[in-house]
Amino acid sequence: VSEHATVVALDVMGGDNAPQATVRGALRAAGPGLEVVMVGDEALIAPLMAEGRDLPGHPHVRVLHAADTVQSHEDGARAVRAKPESSVVLACREVREGRAHAAVSLGHTGAMMAAATLHIRRIPGVLRPGIAVVLPSRTGFLVLVDAGANADARPEHLLQFALMGRLFAQAVLDIPEPRVGLLSIGEEEERGSELVQSAHALLRGTPGFVGNVEGRDIPRGTVDVVVTDGFTGNVALKLYEASGEFLLSELRNAATSSLPAKIGGLLLRPAVRRMRHRIDPDLYGGAVLMGVNGLAVIGHGSANEEAVSNAVRAAARAAREQVVRRVAESISRPGQPAPA
Amino acid sequence: VSEHATVVALDVMGGDNAPQATVRGALRAAGPGLEVVMVGDEALIAPLMAEGRDLPGHPHVRVLHAADTVQSHEDGARAVRAKPESSVVLACREVREGRAHAAVSLGHTGAMMAAATLHIRRIPGVLRPGIAVVLPSRTGFLVLVDAGANADARPEHLLQFALMGRLFAQAVLDIPEPRVGLLSIGEEEERGSELVQSAHALLRGTPGFVGNVEGRDIPRGTVDVVVTDGFTGNVALKLYEASGEFLLSELRNAATSSLPAKIGGLLLRPAVRRMRHRIDPDLYGGAVLMGVNGLAVIGHGSANEEAVSNAVRAAARAAREQVVRRVAESISRPGQPAPA
Repeated sequence: VSEHATVVALDVMGGDNAPQATVRGALRAAGPGLEVVMVGDEALIAPLMAEGRDLPGHPHVRVLHAADTVQSHEDGARAVRAKPESSVVLACREVREGRAHAAVSLGHTGAMMAAATLHIRRIPGVLRPGIAVVLPSRTGFLVLVDAGANADARPEHLLQFALMGRLFAQAVLDIPEPRVGLLSIGEEEERGSELVQSAHALLRGTPGFVGNVEGRDIPRGTVDVVVTDGFTGNVALKLYEASGEFLLSELRNAATSSLPAKIGGLLLRPAVRRMRHRIDPDLYGGAVLMGVNGLAVIGHGSANEEAVSNAVRAAARAAREQVVRRVAESISRPGQPAPA
Repeated sequence: VSEHATVVALDVMGGDNAPQATVRGALRAAGPGLEVVMVGDEALIAPLMAEGRDLPGHPHVRVLHAADTVQSHEDGARAVRAKPESSVVLACREVREGRAHAAVSLGHTGAMMAAATLHIRRIPGVLRPGIAVVLPSRTGFLVLVDAGANADARPEHLLQFALMGRLFAQAVLDIPEPRVGLLSIGEEEERGSELVQSAHALLRGTPGFVGNVEGRDIPRGTVDVVVTDGFTGNVALKLYEASGEFLLSELRNAATSSLPAKIGGLLLRPAVRRMRHRIDPDLYGGAVLMGVNGLAVIGHGSANEEAVSNAVRAAARAAREQVVRRVAESISRPGQPAPA
């Protein structure tokens, strides 16, 4: 690992728009303080690198050839085992072996989870890694964890997700004292599933814990960290993203329904574009697999050049903020599940 | 029960805007084919009735005095047991004893669920009642069930929710062959929680079942019925509703960000109002507690006069469509979980 620059290993073969969007995104993100290792098929990367040779990021990227690629239709866990020379595995190995501070892959959550768990490994004491995502809300941004790493969870997993989510919010969202809420179906502690009731009992009294929250508290931004199992979290994440798409498409229809509406739509367009940008999930640089012993970031499969660049920059930022070291220190202190 | 009119017993004491919005909503909904029994405090109802004496609905409403009311802060199940003369209990008894076709209450889901389960009772063979709600989507409307009746569910509950949701979609949304999806975190049947994997095995081959769907399939309207446990369903419902509020508030902000945007916002306002109306949850007349032996409808606590009227009309429509009889017939046929 370079002494001064943060190094991000980017799986340039992952995502719907790879390798064009990934290589260009890498060139866009790289700079004097941020080196990008582009992991993938050299033969495909070379012409894209040649195209970008005049870009300021060009001296700050390098290529690590990977002979293999996990395809989007493959089962992540199986493919990662069968393809030890695939780009996603090699990217994780760069982190494991200390040559990169973070690994980034787009699109295939299952493959990245498997590669990170197998090749970067869990932080000692972490029961289950959990996926943290940053979501927009009325009051700013919040962290949702677990957004889909585990379909089933136990109460003690939720306790660790709360701890990791809180450290993530401190490091990445710059919130000194994040408020943590447990996702449930009523604010009263005696409501909710058995899982939530047991988790509530474990979370009570931990730093920042404000009690149960409901689905509506995500868009309303009532808390900074929303803790839930990976099933509910993944349903919530995908529903939330698609709600935005749905409403914007309804708005587009509304803005073509009459001549005044059309003119109104044109006048409003720059402001709506800024609003879309604010609520765009690609803005926040992807999901972070918390609990592995190195940074593993999973970006949207549909990521374009800008989104890839955002994911790489967010990974570098999280690396500089030492999110992993903070989690490791917290987890290793028994009886202090969520120190400030 | 009148021979020709559909009779709806409305708990006029429930909801944030009761009894004004509920009494006015009743007067608005009532007519030659729809009689409304307003259940509540006579002394509070009388002046509102006097105000509305010239409305066309006036001859089609009557008052049933209830000495007691369940308050919004009370635990539903406990309050319903402690207050056998409360308006929500008397409304359900009207259904139980055959004097009304449907009971409607606003706001207190727990109280209505308890009153309906205790006083209307379950359909023989139904393991657990489930809440069905109609949600807007890109392609029209869909039914989500269970939206929060049970925090924990077993696979066989989800099987019955699928059956009930399908009959609801046929009767209320007029979809002859509803497509049924099981909410999960991946479309592959081997993904998802243990609950979902077991439920998938039970649902396979049942009429209309198309497999697993994800959170994004709700706004996208990929299926007509989304089946899930009450925990996930309630989180999804509240998140979806609040997403709409969030985006509309962002849109309002966008439309005041500059002078052209302000003019654009004004020109677009009528079209946006129509769009809001289309996606307004109050439009669909509330949630239906499926599986009890009579129609029990729960409206939004924030319901205004129009929303109350919609809930009463939707209840009357579901009564005319004999949703309850259809469910009872399906459940009683063993080995035929979801007949067309």
